[in-house]
Amino acid sequence: MRTGEVTTDPSRAVAAASIAEWDHETDVAVIGFGAAGACAALEAARAGAAVTLYEASSGSGGASAMSGGEIYLGGSGGTPAQRAAGFEDRTEDLEAYLMMAGGAHADAAKVSLYARESLAHYDWLVAQGVPYKGTYIAERCIEPETDDTLIWSGSEEAWPFSEKAKPAPRGHVLQYMGWGGGRLLVDTLEARAREAGVDVHVDARARALIADADGAVVGVIVREDGREKAVRVRRGVVLATGGFCMNGEMVRRHAPAALRCDSPIGTIDDGAGILMGQSVGGQAIHMDQFFTTCPWYPPGSLVKGIFVNQAGQRFINEDCYHGRVSRAIVEQPGTKVWLLVDNAIFARPMELARIDLVAVGESWEEVEAELGFAAGTLATTVAQYNAHAAKGVDPVWHKAAKWLKPLDEGPFAALEFNLETSYFSFFTLGGLETLPTGEVLDRRGEAIPGLYAAGRVTCGLPRWGAGYSSGMSLADCTFFGRMAGRAVAARGADEALAAE
Amino acid sequence: MRTGEVTTDPSRAVAAASIAEWDHETDVAVIGFGAAGACAALEAARAGAAVTLYEASSGSGGASAMSGGEIYLGGSGGTPAQRAAGFEDRTEDLEAYLMMAGGAHADAAKVSLYARESLAHYDWLVAQGVPYKGTYIAERCIEPETDDTLIWSGSEEAWPFSEKAKPAPRGHVLQYMGWGGGRLLVDTLEARAREAGVDVHVDARARALIADADGAVVGVIVREDGREKAVRVRRGVVLATGGFCMNGEMVRRHAPAALRCDSPIGTIDDGAGILMGQSVGGQAIHMDQFFTTCPWYPPGSLVKGIFVNQAGQRFINEDCYHGRVSRAIVEQPGTKVWLLVDNAIFARPMELARIDLVAVGESWEEVEAELGFAAGTLATTVAQYNAHAAKGVDPVWHKAAKWLKPLDEGPFAALEFNLETSYFSFFTLGGLETLPTGEVLDRRGEAIPGLYAAGRVTCGLPRWGAGYSSGMSLADCTFFGRMAGRAVAARGADEALAAE
Repeated sequence: MRTGEVTTDPSRAVAAASIAEWDHETDVAVIGFGAAGACAALEAARAGAAVTLYEASSGSGGASAMSGGEIYLGGSGGTPAQRAAGFEDRTEDLEAYLMMAGGAHADAAKVSLYARESLAHYDWLVAQGVPYKGTYIAERCIEPETDDTLIWSGSEEAWPFSEKAKPAPRGHVLQYMGWGGGRLLVDTLEARAREAGVDVHVDARARALIADADGAVVGVIVREDGREKAVRVRRGVVLATGGFCMNGEMVRRHAPAALRCDSPIGTIDDGAGILMGQSVGGQAIHMDQFFTTCPWYPPGSLVKGIFVNQAGQRFINEDCYHGRVSRAIVEQPGTKVWLLVDNAIFARPMELARIDLVAVGESWEEVEAELGFAAGTLATTVAQYNAHAAKGVDPVWHKAAKWLKPLDEGPFAALEFNLETSYFSFFTLGGLETLPTGEVLDRRGEAIPGLYAAGRVTCGLPRWGAGYSSGMSLADCTFFGRMAGRAVAARGADEALAAE
Repeated sequence: MRTGEVTTDPSRAVAAASIAEWDHETDVAVIGFGAAGACAALEAARAGAAVTLYEASSGSGGASAMSGGEIYLGGSGGTPAQRAAGFEDRTEDLEAYLMMAGGAHADAAKVSLYARESLAHYDWLVAQGVPYKGTYIAERCIEPETDDTLIWSGSEEAWPFSEKAKPAPRGHVLQYMGWGGGRLLVDTLEARAREAGVDVHVDARARALIADADGAVVGVIVREDGREKAVRVRRGVVLATGGFCMNGEMVRRHAPAALRCDSPIGTIDDGAGILMGQSVGGQAIHMDQFFTTCPWYPPGSLVKGIFVNQAGQRFINEDCYHGRVSRAIVEQPGTKVWLLVDNAIFARPMELARIDLVAVGESWEEVEAELGFAAGTLATTVAQYNAHAAKGVDPVWHKAAKWLKPLDEGPFAALEFNLETSYFSFFTLGGLETLPTGEVLDRRGEAIPGLYAAGRVTCGLPRWGAGYSSGMSLADCTFFGRMAGRAVAARGADEALAAE
C-alpha cells in the first residue's frame, strides 16, 4: 500500500482517493473469525462471492469459542429436541418471548425474522455438521455437564415472560461432553467456510475502513506481515469483530455500570469494529447495555431461596434466568445482596461463583441480626414470603409454584453475593445499528453502501441485559452473520460478474 | 453559497473544499440561543472575538426559557442566600454531591471544576444582572410560587446523598414572582450578549458543519432568508442546540425507556447538534439517559407517605427529590405505582400531575383489597413501615426522621401514578462528550479542532436520571457555556489577530 499521509486508526476512515496502490482485491472482506464472521464468510462464499476473511488473532474463535456453544432456537412447532421432549414451540411464542427479552429496546424486525426462521436455522446448523444429540435436561443448569442438547436457558417459565409467551426450553447445546462446546461450533463453521473457498488470513488486524467520496465503503486497511495493506472490496466489508468489553476505556465511557462486574468475557473485543463503523457514519446504539451473570445455580434447589437486597427486600422472582437475576443484583443499592436458604434447600454454589456462606442461625431473626439488619426487616420479608409460599403463591414477585416452599426448616443461612469479591462475568450488548440484512445504518437511519456487520459489534437480538437468555448472542451471531453474508454477496453481484 | 453538490444534513459534514464562495466570515459561530448559547456568545465576545449567533427559531429562549430558571449553586462557603439561611456550603460537599448525582457516569473533571467555581459563577450571574432576592424557602416545592431565591432542589437531605455530602439547599431561583423565571434569565443574558456585540441571527438554522481535510471544523452551513449560507469561522463553532427529546425517532432509537413518559420538555431539541458533532467524529455518550418527573409535591406532607410498586413493595426513600423518585417509578415493573397516605397527611397533588385518588379504606387491608393486591402484601409493607416509623427509623430505605410518621390515622388512601395517564415530563441527558473547556471529543478521546459544545447537546454535569436535581441543567448550560465561549475565543486568537 502507498497512501499519502495515512495514520490508520479505527476511528478514522481512510479516503479511497488517498490509496495510490491496492494490495489486494476481493468481493467481500469479512473482519473477525468468531461465529458471526464464519457464518457471514460461508454464506457469502456459497453465494458466489470471492471472500477474504481477516482475523486479528492467530486463529478462529473469538468470544464464540469461549462460550458453551449454546444457541437459542425454536418456533415453527419446535426443533427435534424440543418435540422429542414434548414441547411444541410455536413461532408466536418465540417471537413474544424475544420481544419481551429486548425490553423497550427490542428490534421488532430482527425478532420477527428470527422467530420465523429459527427452525430453518437449526436445520442449517445441522447441515453444516453441528452435532446435536437431541436429548433434554429438565434440571436447572448453566450448561450441561453432559453431552445433552436442550436446556432451559432463559426466563421462559418465569413471570412476566410466562404470562405472554408459552414456555419452552430453547437453549440448544452441541453434542460435546461438558462445558465449552463453542470451540467445536466455531471449528465446524470454519471447516465449512474453508471448504467453500474462503481465503482466511490470521494475524491480520483490520485497522480502518476505506470510503469513497460518496461515503460508500470500498475497502479496508489490514495490518499483516508487519505492514499495512489496502484491501479493495468489490461488494463490501462485513464487520464481525465482537463487542467492547475488553476495552476498559470504552466500557468506562459508555457502560460504566458494567465496571461493577469484574470479569469481561471476550478475546479481542476491543470495540474497534464499532469505531470503524462510526468512522463512516454508522450509528452505535444502546452502548450502556451489558449482560452479566454470577452463576448461582446449579444446584437448582437454590432457586427455592429468596434474594434480598440491603433494604432486606426481595427484588425479583428467583426463578428467572441466572443472568436476569444477576443484572438485577447489579442494579441494587450497595454492593451486596443475599440469597436466603433453609436447611432443606441448602447446597453450595459452584466455586467459580465465589459466593460465600456468611450467616447461619436457628431463626431468621438470628440471621437478620448476624447480617446486621435492623430487627423486623429481613425477618419480615421471610415471614411474608413463607406465609404466601405455604399457600403456593408469591403475590409479590410471582415466582412459579414449583419453586415455592416456606423457608422454615432450620437452620437458616445467607449466601452473600458481593460485587467486590464474587464472580460477575459480563459482555457488552450495545453496538452498530443494523438492518436484519446486516446493513449498517447511518445516523439518518439509512444504510451505508458496502458496510455490513453481525454479532456483538452490532446491537442485535440481545440488547437488554435484564432480558438476556443464554444462546441469544450465538443465535444472533450465527443467524444474522448468515444474513449479512448473503446480503453482501448479493450487492452489486450482477455488475461485479459483468466486469469480470 | 455555491457548493458542488451539497445536500445539507446535520449527519453529514460538508467538505470545506466544496465551498466555492463563503457568505459570511466570523471568528466564532454559536449555534442556539438558549442559556448555553447566550453564555458562550457573551464570553467569546468579551474575550475579543467577533461572534455570530444563529438561532433556528424567531428569538432567544430554547428550553432554558421554558424552565424555572433555577440554577444549582453553592460551595466555597455558600452563596449569600445560603449563608443568610445558615448554610455554610463547603466546596467538598458540593463536589461529593455532584459526583453521587452523576452515578457511575459522573464526569469528575467537570464536577471538580464546577464545585470550585460555582460561587464565582453565582457572582458572575449577579454581575450580568440576574436578580436574586436572597431569601430561603424551607418547604418542599418544585419552584417557588413567590419571588424567593433558595430552595431544596435535590436529594441533598436524603439517603444515600446525606451520608457523604453535608446537605445544603442549592437551587437558586431568580427574583421573579411564580414559576417561569427561565425567560427572565435568558432575556438578561441576551441583553448582555447584544451589548457585548454579538451579532444575533434568528430564523437561522444551522444545517451542517463544514470541516477541512484534516477534520477541523472551519464553518457551518446556515439556512437563512430562504437559502443556505456558508459561514466560515476563524476560531470555531459552539454547538448549543439542546438535547433530542423532541425528536421521536432519536428517542426511540437511543432512549426508548423515555417513551414511558408522555411530555418532552423542549422547544426545538431535535438532536441536530448531536448529529452535527458526530458528523465530524464527535462521540455521543449516555444517550439512554433522561430526566423525568411527575411533580407529586407540594404539598410536602405527601413526602410522609410511602410509595409501593405492583409488588406492594417500597422502592425508594420518599424524601428524595421528586425527579429521583419519578425516575425510580419509571423503572418499576408494570405501569402503576401508588403513594399511600393516611388522613393526617392527605392532600391533593397539583392538577398538573394527573395523580388520581383511587382507593380509600378504613384499614390498610381494605385499601389493599380495593387495589386488587393479594392479602398480606401491601398491608404487610405498611405494617412494617409503621412499626419502624413509630420508633423514628426507616431501616429499609433510610427516609430521614423528619419525614417519618406511622400511617395509622384513618381513613387511608392510595394515590395512583399511572404511566399511561399521569404527567411525566422528560428531557434527554445524553449527548456529545466534551472537556470542561467545551472542546468536543472524538471517538479516540481527542479534541476536534474548532468544535465546542455546551448544554444539553452535550453529556454534561447532569448525566444520570436518578441523580438529577433541579438547576443542574442550567448550571451546566450557563457555566460550561461560558467555558466554551472562553475556550473558542482563545483558540488561534493570536494568529487571527495577526492576520487582520
